[in-house]
Amino acid sequence: YNIAVLAGDGIGPEVMAEANKVLDAIASRFSLTFNRNEYAVGGFAIDTQGEALPPATLAGCEAADAILFGSIGGPKWDTLPLEKRPERAALLTLRSHFDLFSNLRPAKIYPGLEALSPLRADIAASGVDVLVVRELTSGIYFGQPKGREGEGDDEFAYDTMRYTRAEIERIARSAFEAASRRNNKVTSVDKANVLVTSRLWREVTEEVAKDYPQVTLEHIYIDNATMQVMKNPAQFDVMLCSNLFGDIISDECAMMTGSMGLLASASMNSAGFGLYEPAGGSAPDIAGQGIANPIAQILSAAMMLRFSFDEAEAADAIERAVVATLEAKILTAELRMPGATGQAATTQNVGDAVV
Amino acid sequence: YNIAVLAGDGIGPEVMAEANKVLDAIASRFSLTFNRNEYAVGGFAIDTQGEALPPATLAGCEAADAILFGSIGGPKWDTLPLEKRPERAALLTLRSHFDLFSNLRPAKIYPGLEALSPLRADIAASGVDVLVVRELTSGIYFGQPKGREGEGDDEFAYDTMRYTRAEIERIARSAFEAASRRNNKVTSVDKANVLVTSRLWREVTEEVAKDYPQVTLEHIYIDNATMQVMKNPAQFDVMLCSNLFGDIISDECAMMTGSMGLLASASMNSAGFGLYEPAGGSAPDIAGQGIANPIAQILSAAMMLRFSFDEAEAADAIERAVVATLEAKILTAELRMPGATGQAATTQNVGDAVV
Ligand SMILES: CC(C)[C@H](C(=O)O)[C@@H](O)C(=O)O
Ligand SMILES: CC(C)[C@H](C(=O)O)[C@@H](O)C(=O)O
Repeated sequence: YNIAVLAGDGIGPEVMAEANKVLDAIASRFSLTFNRNEYAVGGFAIDTQGEALPPATLAGCEAADAILFGSIGGPKWDTLPLEKRPERAALLTLRSHFDLFSNLRPAKIYPGLEALSPLRADIAASGVDVLVVRELTSGIYFGQPKGREGEGDDEFAYDTMRYTRAEIERIARSAFEAASRRNNKVTSVDKANVLVTSRLWREVTEEVAKDYPQVTLEHIYIDNATMQVMKNPAQFDVMLCSNLFGDIISDECAMMTGSMGLLASASMNSAGFGLYEPAGGSAPDIAGQGIANPIAQILSAAMMLRFSFDEAEAADAIERAVVATLEAKILTAELRMPGATGQAATTQNVGDAVV
Repeated sequence: YNIAVLAGDGIGPEVMAEANKVLDAIASRFSLTFNRNEYAVGGFAIDTQGEALPPATLAGCEAADAILFGSIGGPKWDTLPLEKRPERAALLTLRSHFDLFSNLRPAKIYPGLEALSPLRADIAASGVDVLVVRELTSGIYFGQPKGREGEGDDEFAYDTMRYTRAEIERIARSAFEAASRRNNKVTSVDKANVLVTSRLWREVTEEVAKDYPQVTLEHIYIDNATMQVMKNPAQFDVMLCSNLFGDIISDECAMMTGSMGLLASASMNSAGFGLYEPAGGSAPDIAGQGIANPIAQILSAAMMLRFSFDEAEAADAIERAVVATLEAKILTAELRMPGATGQAATTQNVGDAVV
């Protein structure tokens, strides 16, 4: 398998090193070959090559079977014009260029780590395991027209939220397929009492549901969804969202677990090509200290094996090793309970344990 | 003062009766006169007059100094076409007709009620007191064009998010004015890394901030905001939001308190005319049983006194009476701790105690 490795900024390179060690272990255990080529991306690419997504990086991604992505951005590049910043110029461009419409963001509270959740103890212990399926290449992120016109007080700005039937159908199928492999429930998040886009979203989702009679479909308004995620997250299995609502709900779900350093994500197109990245950011405040949690990056590699390479056994092996590492309490600082004894594990310790 | 009283559906009439009792007590204590006229609205108006906002109701509101609103809607009217449903036909129409652009939604965790919050005990006890200031008459709710076109797979729907400089400026001023009377901090919520509307929002907010040197202004992305509300809500004083983001964040803030039955809201125009309503809904499941919490409705009346009638002392008196009622543990069922002894208070008991 050919992998384009884009470690990026901040903690990206450190946690990527651990994911690479885990892939080496998988290669020998399962007799697989991973050809990995590293490319510059984000702030590092701006500093060294003048742009966040250099042509060589894009070409390298095109030649690969999947992209293993670290994280990008940081205060150093925040003063650039928006279009040049790492998040826009690299991440949104990659999503759009490769038509990575299907974004899977699992969020679960691991047994033993309930106390890290910002939710009340009984809610955190109720068995929270949500998969947010977010549409990633359309909606108000990319809808045209978008712009600014007029002068003085009458100056105005506008963005267009827009979805075609075909765009809704394919992401709805992703959600129903995922629910079929999980707990057979899809909750579709919209604002159908206000948005015309949401009404079409609801209609198409209902139609797709007919092809999955074993899966239950519910609809919820985005405002109510943010309440229910807090009050009773265990009620959700798969949450199906448009681009903007998925951005909001997936972050709320990630925070609810209290352990962002454990959360991976996949962004895929219909050919199975995908970009795999941790849910957390580049965390410049702790970069270079060897204390960042590499598990989200390691689990992103596992998602890559599962979804782009169809190597479910290898992916299972990584996920089991991660659970065993957590159970053995080999934990980086941010996962330790107040008053825990002994030393926090380093980034390397955790990588070694998973290996 | 002339008040149009629109009790509406579900628990609306029961809790409105208690707010009226409190207004009677205020009238005699502060030598004020409240001329109250009741009008049909919502599902009740559909059933009795064929539409959710009959002409007589709108005329009555136009003749009044303020609208005291209960709550509307319920399963009975959910099968109507969207444009005829109570929420759209009455509430969105009233907001737009009276240009009620400034929506204030306070959310606080009352001392003694921390355990009701779905947040972890230490977070719930950290002193949470947020005011969401939401723009209510523009943005993607009302932006044109909005529609549906095309056929088959290519059929598409669209909504327009749109803000003028003047619209942003006036709601930003509401937020800074409110912060000046509170803890001098405004957190403006946007998605400026993706939306052109948000970039104008940020620019105008920065300009307005110059007129309030004592107030600190921070910007936060909506996705991060949903995380921070959960992780550390005590960091917020005033949260300034567009229509859609305010819908989402204000509901998350309301849920975070765990006591929706205590939350009031104000929706005002630039002439000081306003609509005052509880944050919770019509709660058809508990309607007619005399167990609904009237405090949100009573505090809505207090906001009316403060903002539309400039009767701050009268408003203070109501708010003190509510705190005293809570401290005396005269609580409706949903506010009682698990294992509380004695009987839950009825809707009437709570109204009497506040009186
Ligand atoms: C960086 C930003 C543009 C991006 C988004 O809004 O999609 C991020 O928040 C995410 O969720 O991946
Ligand atoms: C009923 C609905 C249209 C309304 C809104 O979205 O504004 C409600 O959620 C609110 O927040 O008042």
